[in-house]
Amino acid sequence: MQACLTGHFITLEGPEGSGKSTHIRRLADRLKAADHDVVVTREPGGTPLGEAIRGLLQHDTAGESPVPRAEVLLFCASRAQLVQTVIRPALERGAWVLSDRFADSTFAYQGFGRGLELAELQTANAFATGGLVPDLTLLLDLDEDNARRRITMRYGTEAAADRFEREPPDFHARLREGFLALAAAEPQRFRVIPSGRALEDVADDVWQAVCDRFSDVPGAT
Amino acid sequence: MQACLTGHFITLEGPEGSGKSTHIRRLADRLKAADHDVVVTREPGGTPLGEAIRGLLQHDTAGESPVPRAEVLLFCASRAQLVQTVIRPALERGAWVLSDRFADSTFAYQGFGRGLELAELQTANAFATGGLVPDLTLLLDLDEDNARRRITMRYGTEAAADRFEREPPDFHARLREGFLALAAAEPQRFRVIPSGRALEDVADDVWQAVCDRFSDVPGAT
Repeated sequence: MQACLTGHFITLEGPEGSGKSTHIRRLADRLKAADHDVVVTREPGGTPLGEAIRGLLQHDTAGESPVPRAEVLLFCASRAQLVQTVIRPALERGAWVLSDRFADSTFAYQGFGRGLELAELQTANAFATGGLVPDLTLLLDLDEDNARRRITMRYGTEAAADRFEREPPDFHARLREGFLALAAAEPQRFRVIPSGRALEDVADDVWQAVCDRFSDVPGAT
Repeated sequence: MQACLTGHFITLEGPEGSGKSTHIRRLADRLKAADHDVVVTREPGGTPLGEAIRGLLQHDTAGESPVPRAEVLLFCASRAQLVQTVIRPALERGAWVLSDRFADSTFAYQGFGRGLELAELQTANAFATGGLVPDLTLLLDLDEDNARRRITMRYGTEAAADRFEREPPDFHARLREGFLALAAAEPQRFRVIPSGRALEDVADDVWQAVCDRFSDVPGAT
Protein backbone atom coordinates (compact mmCIF):
# COMPACT_ATOMS: atom_id res chain seq x y z
CA MET A 1 0.00 0.00 0.00
CA GLN A 2 2.85 2.34 0.95
CA ALA A 3 4.35 1.83 -2.51
CA CYS A 4 1.85 4.08 -4.26
CA LEU A 5 2.18 6.91 -1.73
CA THR A 6 4.40 9.27 -3.70
CA GLY A 7 3.86 12.31 -1.45
CA HIS A 8 5.71 13.40 1.68
CA PHE A 9 4.18 13.06 5.12
CA ILE A 10 5.53 15.38 7.82
CA THR A 11 4.16 15.61 11.36
CA LEU A 12 4.84 18.29 13.96
CA GLU A 13 4.77 17.16 17.57
CA GLY A 14 5.36 18.81 20.93
CA PRO A 15 3.45 20.19 23.91
CA GLU A 16 0.81 22.90 23.69
CA GLY A 17 2.45 26.27 23.20
CA SER A 18 5.53 24.88 21.44
CA GLY A 19 4.65 26.69 18.22
CA LYS A 20 3.41 23.78 16.11
CA SER A 21 0.61 25.69 14.39
CA THR A 22 2.82 28.71 13.65
CA HIS A 23 5.60 26.62 12.17
CA ILE A 24 3.33 24.34 10.21
CA ARG A 25 1.79 27.41 8.60
CA ARG A 26 5.19 28.88 7.76
CA LEU A 27 6.42 25.59 6.36
CA ALA A 28 3.26 25.23 4.27
CA ASP A 29 3.69 28.77 2.91
CA ARG A 30 7.28 28.09 1.96
CA LEU A 31 6.42 24.85 0.17
CA LYS A 32 3.46 26.44 -1.60
CA ALA A 33 5.67 29.32 -2.72
CA ALA A 34 7.78 26.67 -4.46
CA ASP A 35 4.61 25.40 -6.22
CA HIS A 36 4.19 22.25 -4.17
CA ASP A 37 0.76 20.73 -3.55
CA VAL A 38 0.43 21.08 0.25
CA VAL A 39 -2.27 19.75 2.59
CA VAL A 40 -2.26 21.05 6.17
CA THR A 41 -4.27 19.14 8.76
CA ARG A 42 -4.45 18.55 12.47
CA GLU A 43 -5.29 15.97 15.10
CA PRO A 44 -7.66 15.31 16.60
CA GLY A 45 -9.79 16.74 13.82
CA GLY A 46 -9.07 17.49 10.20
CA THR A 47 -12.38 15.98 9.03
CA PRO A 48 -15.99 16.82 10.00
CA LEU A 49 -16.16 13.64 12.10
CA GLY A 50 -12.70 14.28 13.58
CA GLU A 51 -13.62 17.82 14.61
CA ALA A 52 -16.73 16.47 16.38
CA ILE A 53 -14.50 13.92 18.17
CA ARG A 54 -12.08 16.74 19.06
CA GLY A 55 -14.91 18.41 20.96
CA LEU A 56 -15.55 15.22 22.96
CA LEU A 57 -11.84 14.99 23.83
CA GLN A 58 -11.20 18.56 24.85
CA HIS A 59 -14.22 19.18 27.03
CA ASP A 60 -16.33 17.06 29.36
CA THR A 61 -19.64 15.63 28.14
CA ALA A 62 -22.35 16.35 30.73
CA GLY A 63 -19.68 16.52 33.43
CA GLU A 64 -17.98 13.28 32.35
CA SER A 65 -14.37 13.04 31.11
CA PRO A 66 -13.32 10.16 28.84
CA VAL A 67 -11.51 7.41 30.78
CA PRO A 68 -7.93 6.88 29.47
CA ARG A 69 -8.81 3.93 27.22
CA ALA A 70 -11.81 5.76 25.75
CA GLU A 71 -9.55 8.76 25.18
CA VAL A 72 -7.07 6.65 23.20
CA LEU A 73 -9.84 5.09 21.13
CA LEU A 74 -11.38 8.49 20.33
CA PHE A 75 -8.00 9.84 19.18
CA CYS A 76 -7.56 6.70 17.07
CA ALA A 77 -11.06 7.04 15.58
CA SER A 78 -10.31 10.59 14.52
CA ARG A 79 -6.98 9.40 13.07
CA ALA A 80 -8.57 6.52 11.12
CA GLN A 81 -10.99 8.95 9.46
CA LEU A 82 -8.20 11.44 8.70
CA VAL A 83 -5.83 8.84 7.25
CA GLN A 84 -8.42 7.26 4.99
CA THR A 85 -10.25 10.36 3.76
CA VAL A 86 -7.51 13.03 3.74
CA ILE A 87 -3.92 11.84 4.24
CA ARG A 88 -3.75 8.73 2.03
CA PRO A 89 -5.56 10.34 -0.94
CA ALA A 90 -3.20 13.37 -0.72
CA LEU A 91 -0.09 11.17 -0.50
CA GLU A 92 -1.33 9.07 -3.41
CA ARG A 93 -1.54 12.14 -5.65
CA GLY A 94 1.97 13.20 -4.55
CA ALA A 95 1.12 16.05 -2.17
CA TRP A 96 3.00 17.20 0.91
CA VAL A 97 0.89 16.47 3.98
CA LEU A 98 1.70 18.45 7.11
CA SER A 99 -0.11 17.36 10.27
CA ASP A 100 -0.25 19.22 13.56
CA ARG A 101 0.08 16.11 15.79
CA PHE A 102 -0.28 12.44 14.83
CA ALA A 103 0.37 9.07 16.49
CA ASP A 104 3.34 10.22 18.58
CA SER A 105 0.99 12.45 20.58
CA THR A 106 -0.99 9.35 21.56
CA PHE A 107 2.18 7.59 22.69
CA ALA A 108 3.37 10.65 24.62
CA TYR A 109 0.08 11.79 26.22
CA GLN A 110 -1.68 8.49 26.87
CA GLY A 111 1.43 6.34 27.21
CA PHE A 112 4.00 8.42 29.07
CA GLY A 113 1.42 10.90 30.42
CA ARG A 114 -1.39 8.59 31.56
CA GLY A 115 0.61 5.41 32.00
CA LEU A 116 -1.07 3.12 29.46
CA GLU A 117 1.08 0.39 27.89
CA LEU A 118 2.96 1.60 24.81
CA ALA A 119 2.59 -1.78 23.08
CA GLU A 120 -1.20 -1.62 23.40
CA LEU A 121 -1.23 1.94 22.10
CA GLN A 122 0.91 0.93 19.14
CA THR A 123 -1.53 -1.85 18.27
CA ALA A 124 -4.55 0.45 18.48
CA ASN A 125 -2.72 3.05 16.42
CA ALA A 126 -1.68 0.56 13.74
CA PHE A 127 -5.31 -0.49 13.41
CA ALA A 128 -6.31 3.17 12.99
CA THR A 129 -3.61 4.10 10.47
CA GLY A 130 -3.35 0.82 8.58
CA GLY A 131 0.37 1.08 9.27
CA LEU A 132 0.98 4.58 7.88
CA VAL A 133 4.04 6.23 9.49
CA PRO A 134 5.27 9.80 8.85
CA ASP A 135 8.37 10.27 6.68
CA LEU A 136 9.61 13.01 9.01
CA THR A 137 8.51 14.07 12.50
CA LEU A 138 9.61 17.43 13.84
CA LEU A 139 9.52 17.55 17.63
CA LEU A 140 9.31 21.13 18.87
CA ASP A 141 10.81 20.66 22.29
CA LEU A 142 9.94 23.03 25.12
CA ASP A 143 10.73 22.61 28.81
CA GLU A 144 7.66 22.33 31.03
CA ASP A 145 8.04 25.76 32.70
CA ASN A 146 8.09 27.42 29.32
CA ALA A 147 5.16 25.32 28.11
CA ARG A 148 3.12 26.27 31.16
CA ARG A 149 3.92 29.99 30.80
CA ARG A 150 2.84 29.93 27.17
CA ILE A 151 -0.49 28.29 27.97
CA THR A 152 -1.17 30.96 30.61
CA MET A 153 -0.21 33.70 28.13
CA ARG A 154 -2.49 32.21 25.51
CA TYR A 155 -5.60 31.73 27.62
CA GLY A 156 -5.18 34.50 30.19
CA THR A 157 -5.60 31.97 33.01
CA GLU A 158 -4.91 28.27 33.21
CA ALA A 159 -8.58 27.77 34.13
CA ALA A 160 -9.62 28.72 30.59
CA ALA A 161 -7.35 26.10 29.06
CA ASP A 162 -8.71 22.74 27.94
CA ARG A 163 -8.66 19.39 29.75
CA PHE A 164 -5.10 18.52 28.69
CA GLU A 165 -3.64 21.92 29.33
CA ARG A 166 -4.95 21.88 32.92
CA GLU A 167 -3.04 18.68 33.78
CA PRO A 168 -0.61 19.06 36.71
CA PRO A 169 3.11 19.88 36.19
CA ASP A 170 4.29 16.28 36.57
CA PHE A 171 2.04 15.28 33.66
CA HIS A 172 3.76 17.86 31.48
CA ALA A 173 7.17 16.66 32.65
CA ARG A 174 6.30 13.05 31.72
CA LEU A 175 4.99 14.28 28.39
CA ARG A 176 8.24 16.00 27.50
CA GLU A 177 10.27 13.02 28.62
CA GLY A 178 7.99 10.81 26.52
CA PHE A 179 8.39 12.85 23.35
CA LEU A 180 12.17 12.86 23.79
CA ALA A 181 12.20 9.08 24.36
CA LEU A 182 10.15 8.52 21.20
CA ALA A 183 12.57 10.72 19.24
CA ALA A 184 15.58 8.88 20.66
CA ALA A 185 14.04 5.52 19.68
CA GLU A 186 13.60 6.57 16.02
CA PRO A 187 16.39 8.98 15.14
CA GLN A 188 15.92 8.49 11.38
CA ARG A 189 12.33 9.71 11.50
CA PHE A 190 12.56 12.36 14.23
CA ARG A 191 14.31 15.70 14.31
CA VAL A 192 14.25 17.48 17.70
CA ILE A 193 14.11 21.26 17.37
CA PRO A 194 14.42 23.35 20.54
CA SER A 195 11.50 25.78 20.64
CA GLY A 196 11.25 28.78 23.01
CA ARG A 197 13.80 30.63 20.84
CA ALA A 198 13.38 33.43 18.30
CA LEU A 199 10.67 32.46 15.80
CA GLU A 200 12.97 32.87 12.81
CA ASP A 201 15.61 30.60 14.29
CA VAL A 202 13.08 27.83 14.89
CA ALA A 203 11.63 28.32 11.40
CA ASP A 204 15.11 28.05 9.88
CA ASP A 205 15.72 24.77 11.73
CA VAL A 206 12.35 23.42 10.55
CA TRP A 207 13.16 24.28 6.94
CA GLN A 208 16.66 22.83 7.22
CA ALA A 209 15.27 19.57 8.63
CA VAL A 210 12.87 19.29 5.69
CA CYS A 211 15.64 20.01 3.18
CA ASP A 212 17.91 17.44 4.86
CA ARG A 213 15.26 14.75 4.71
CA PHE A 214 13.88 15.25 1.22
CA SER A 215 15.98 15.75 -1.87
CA ASP A 216 13.17 17.30 -3.95
CA VAL A 217 12.74 20.56 -2.04
CA PRO A 218 13.75 23.57 -4.16
CA GLY A 219 16.49 25.46 -2.37
CA ALA A 220 17.54 22.40 -0.37
CA THR A 221 21.18 22.62 0.54
CA MET B 1 -9.34 -8.32 38.05
CA GLN B 2 -12.18 -10.66 37.11
CA ALA B 3 -11.92 -12.33 40.51
CA CYS B 4 -13.65 -9.52 42.39
CA LEU B 5 -16.52 -9.27 39.91
CA THR B 6 -19.22 -11.06 41.88
CA GLY B 7 -22.14 -9.89 39.72
CA HIS B 8 -23.61 -11.41 36.56
CA PHE B 9 -23.05 -9.91 33.15
CA ILE B 10 -25.63 -10.74 30.47
CA THR B 11 -25.66 -9.29 26.96
CA LEU B 12 -28.45 -9.39 24.39
CA GLU B 13 -27.40 -9.46 20.76
CA GLY B 14 -29.17 -9.65 17.43
CA PRO B 15 -30.22 -7.45 14.53
CA GLU B 16 -32.34 -4.33 14.84
CA GLY B 17 -35.98 -5.33 15.36
CA SER B 18 -35.18 -8.66 17.03
CA GLY B 19 -36.74 -7.54 20.33
CA LYS B 20 -33.61 -6.92 22.41
CA SER B 21 -34.91 -3.83 24.20
CA THR B 22 -38.27 -5.45 24.95
CA HIS B 23 -36.73 -8.61 26.34
CA ILE B 24 -34.03 -6.85 28.30
CA ARG B 25 -36.75 -4.79 30.00
CA ARG B 26 -38.80 -7.86 30.80
CA LEU B 27 -35.79 -9.74 32.12
CA ALA B 28 -34.81 -6.76 34.27
CA ASP B 29 -38.34 -6.53 35.68
CA ARG B 30 -38.35 -10.20 36.55
CA LEU B 31 -34.96 -10.01 38.29
CA LYS B 32 -35.93 -6.84 40.15
CA ALA B 33 -39.18 -8.49 41.29
CA ALA B 34 -36.94 -11.09 42.94
CA ASP B 35 -35.07 -8.26 44.72
CA HIS B 36 -31.92 -8.39 42.62
CA ASP B 37 -29.78 -5.30 42.02
CA VAL B 38 -30.13 -4.83 38.25
CA VAL B 39 -28.36 -2.38 35.93
CA VAL B 40 -29.68 -2.06 32.38
CA THR B 41 -27.50 -0.40 29.80
CA ARG B 42 -26.93 -0.25 26.07
CA GLU B 43 -24.30 0.12 23.39
CA PRO B 44 -23.24 2.36 21.94
CA GLY B 45 -24.16 4.67 24.79
CA GLY B 46 -24.99 4.05 28.42
CA THR B 47 -22.85 6.98 29.60
CA PRO B 48 -22.99 10.70 28.72
CA LEU B 49 -19.88 10.32 26.55
CA GLY B 50 -21.19 7.08 25.03
CA GLU B 51 -24.50 8.66 24.10
CA ALA B 52 -22.62 11.49 22.34
CA ILE B 53 -20.59 8.85 20.47
CA ARG B 54 -23.84 7.04 19.58
CA GLY B 55 -24.97 10.19 17.78
CA LEU B 56 -21.74 10.24 15.72
CA LEU B 57 -22.24 6.58 14.79
CA GLN B 58 -25.89 6.65 13.83
CA HIS B 59 -25.96 9.78 11.72
CA ASP B 60 -23.51 11.49 9.37
CA THR B 61 -21.46 14.45 10.63
CA ALA B 62 -21.69 17.29 8.09
CA GLY B 63 -22.42 14.75 5.35
CA GLU B 64 -19.53 12.44 6.36
CA SER B 65 -19.96 8.83 7.53
CA PRO B 66 -17.30 7.22 9.71
CA VAL B 67 -14.98 4.96 7.67
CA PRO B 68 -15.12 1.31 8.90
CA ARG B 69 -12.02 1.59 11.12
CA ALA B 70 -13.22 4.84 12.67
CA GLU B 71 -16.58 3.18 13.25
CA VAL B 72 -14.94 0.30 15.15
CA LEU B 73 -12.85 2.69 17.24
CA LEU B 74 -15.88 4.81 18.13
CA PHE B 75 -17.81 1.74 19.25
CA CYS B 76 -14.79 0.65 21.29
CA ALA B 77 -14.43 4.12 22.85
CA SER B 78 -18.05 4.04 23.97
CA ARG B 79 -17.46 0.52 25.32
CA ALA B 80 -14.32 1.48 27.25
CA GLN B 81 -16.21 4.29 28.99
CA LEU B 82 -19.17 2.02 29.76
CA VAL B 83 -17.05 -0.83 31.11
CA GLN B 84 -14.97 1.34 33.41
CA THR B 85 -17.64 3.71 34.72
CA VAL B 86 -20.78 1.52 34.75
CA ILE B 87 -20.30 -2.22 34.16
CA ARG B 88 -17.24 -3.03 36.31
CA PRO B 89 -18.44 -1.00 39.33
CA ALA B 90 -21.84 -2.74 39.14
CA LEU B 91 -20.29 -6.21 38.82
CA GLU B 92 -17.94 -5.45 41.71
CA ARG B 93 -20.89 -4.72 43.99
CA GLY B 94 -22.60 -7.93 42.86
CA ALA B 95 -25.28 -6.51 40.56
CA TRP B 96 -26.82 -8.06 37.46
CA VAL B 97 -25.76 -6.07 34.42
CA LEU B 98 -27.90 -6.44 31.30
CA SER B 99 -26.55 -4.79 28.17
CA ASP B 100 -28.40 -4.24 24.91
CA ARG B 101 -25.45 -5.11 22.60
CA PHE B 102 -21.76 -5.46 23.50
CA ALA B 103 -18.59 -6.70 21.77
CA ASP B 104 -20.32 -9.34 19.64
CA SER B 105 -22.11 -6.57 17.74
CA THR B 106 -18.71 -5.18 16.73
CA PHE B 107 -17.59 -8.60 15.52
CA ALA B 108 -20.86 -9.16 13.62
CA TYR B 109 -21.37 -5.67 12.11
CA GLN B 110 -17.81 -4.55 11.42
CA GLY B 111 -16.28 -8.01 10.98
CA PHE B 112 -18.86 -10.10 9.12
CA GLY B 113 -20.82 -7.07 7.86
CA ARG B 114 -18.05 -4.71 6.74
CA GLY B 115 -15.30 -7.27 6.17
CA LEU B 116 -12.71 -6.12 8.72
CA GLU B 117 -10.39 -8.79 10.18
CA LEU B 118 -11.90 -10.47 13.25
CA ALA B 119 -8.49 -10.78 14.93
CA GLU B 120 -7.92 -7.02 14.68
CA LEU B 121 -11.40 -6.34 16.05
CA GLN B 122 -10.77 -8.71 18.95
CA THR B 123 -7.55 -6.86 19.81
CA ALA B 124 -9.24 -3.44 19.69
CA ASN B 125 -12.10 -4.80 21.77
CA ALA B 126 -9.81 -6.35 24.39
CA PHE B 127 -8.08 -2.98 24.78
CA ALA B 128 -11.49 -1.31 25.28
CA THR B 129 -12.86 -3.84 27.75
CA GLY B 130 -9.67 -4.76 29.58
CA GLY B 131 -10.64 -8.37 28.83
CA LEU B 132 -14.17 -8.33 30.27
CA VAL B 133 -16.39 -10.98 28.63
CA PRO B 134 -20.11 -11.52 29.33
CA ASP B 135 -21.12 -14.52 31.45
CA LEU B 136 -24.08 -15.16 29.14
CA THR B 137 -24.98 -13.82 25.71
CA LEU B 138 -28.49 -14.24 24.40
CA LEU B 139 -28.68 -14.05 20.63
CA LEU B 140 -32.17 -13.13 19.47
CA ASP B 141 -32.06 -14.62 16.01
CA LEU B 142 -34.27 -13.24 13.24
CA ASP B 143 -34.05 -14.01 9.53
CA GLU B 144 -33.23 -11.00 7.37
CA ASP B 145 -36.69 -10.68 5.74
CA ASN B 146 -38.28 -10.49 9.16
CA ALA B 147 -35.63 -8.03 10.38
CA ARG B 148 -36.23 -5.79 7.39
CA ARG B 149 -40.01 -5.90 7.81
CA ARG B 150 -39.71 -4.92 11.47
CA ILE B 151 -37.48 -1.94 10.71
CA THR B 152 -40.00 -0.70 8.14
CA MET B 153 -42.85 -1.19 10.64
CA ARG B 154 -40.92 0.69 13.30
CA TYR B 155 -39.88 3.71 11.23
CA GLY B 156 -42.73 3.90 8.69
CA THR B 157 -40.21 3.86 5.84
CA GLU B 158 -36.70 2.51 5.55
CA ALA B 159 -35.53 6.03 4.68
CA ALA B 160 -36.24 7.17 8.26
CA ALA B 161 -34.06 4.41 9.69
CA ASP B 162 -30.46 5.07 10.76
CA ARG B 163 -27.23 4.42 8.88
CA PHE B 164 -27.06 0.73 9.88
CA GLU B 165 -30.68 -0.02 9.27
CA ARG B 166 -30.44 1.33 5.72
CA GLU B 167 -27.69 -1.14 4.76
CA PRO B 168 -28.56 -3.39 1.77
CA PRO B 169 -30.07 -6.89 2.25
CA ASP B 170 -26.76 -8.73 1.77
CA PHE B 171 -25.29 -6.77 4.70
CA HIS B 172 -28.11 -8.01 6.91
CA ALA B 173 -27.61 -11.55 5.63
CA ARG B 174 -23.88 -11.42 6.51
CA LEU B 175 -24.78 -9.97 9.89
CA ARG B 176 -27.08 -12.85 10.75
CA GLU B 177 -24.55 -15.39 9.53
CA GLY B 178 -21.91 -13.62 11.64
CA PHE B 179 -23.93 -13.70 14.84
CA LEU B 180 -24.68 -17.40 14.32
CA ALA B 181 -20.98 -18.12 13.66
CA LEU B 182 -19.99 -16.30 16.86
CA ALA B 183 -22.56 -18.29 18.82
CA ALA B 184 -21.35 -21.57 17.31
CA ALA B 185 -17.76 -20.71 18.27
CA GLU B 186 -18.64 -20.16 21.95
CA PRO B 187 -21.53 -22.47 22.81
CA GLN B 188 -20.88 -22.18 26.58
CA ARG B 189 -21.41 -18.42 26.54
CA PHE B 190 -24.10 -18.08 23.86
CA ARG B 191 -27.71 -19.15 23.82
CA VAL B 192 -29.50 -18.70 20.48
CA ILE B 193 -33.18 -17.85 20.88
CA PRO B 194 -35.35 -17.68 17.76
CA SER B 195 -37.18 -14.37 17.75
CA GLY B 196 -40.11 -13.50 15.46
CA ARG B 197 -42.37 -15.71 17.61
CA ALA B 198 -45.00 -14.83 20.19
CA LEU B 199 -43.50 -12.40 22.72
CA GLU B 200 -44.30 -14.66 25.68
CA ASP B 201 -42.58 -17.64 24.10
CA VAL B 202 -39.40 -15.66 23.50
CA ALA B 203 -39.55 -14.21 27.04
CA ASP B 204 -39.92 -17.72 28.48
CA ASP B 205 -36.85 -18.89 26.56
CA VAL B 206 -34.86 -15.87 27.78
CA TRP B 207 -35.79 -16.59 31.38
CA GLN B 208 -35.03 -20.28 30.99
CA ALA B 209 -31.58 -19.50 29.56
CA VAL B 210 -30.81 -17.27 32.55
CA CYS B 211 -32.01 -19.91 35.02
CA ASP B 212 -29.94 -22.59 33.26
CA ARG B 213 -26.79 -20.50 33.38
CA PHE B 214 -26.97 -19.13 36.92
CA SER B 215 -27.82 -21.17 39.99
CA ASP B 216 -28.78 -18.15 42.13
CA VAL B 217 -31.94 -17.08 40.28
CA PRO B 218 -35.06 -17.53 42.42
CA GLY B 219 -37.43 -19.83 40.63
CA ALA B 220 -34.68 -21.40 38.59
CA THR B 221 -35.56 -24.91 37.62
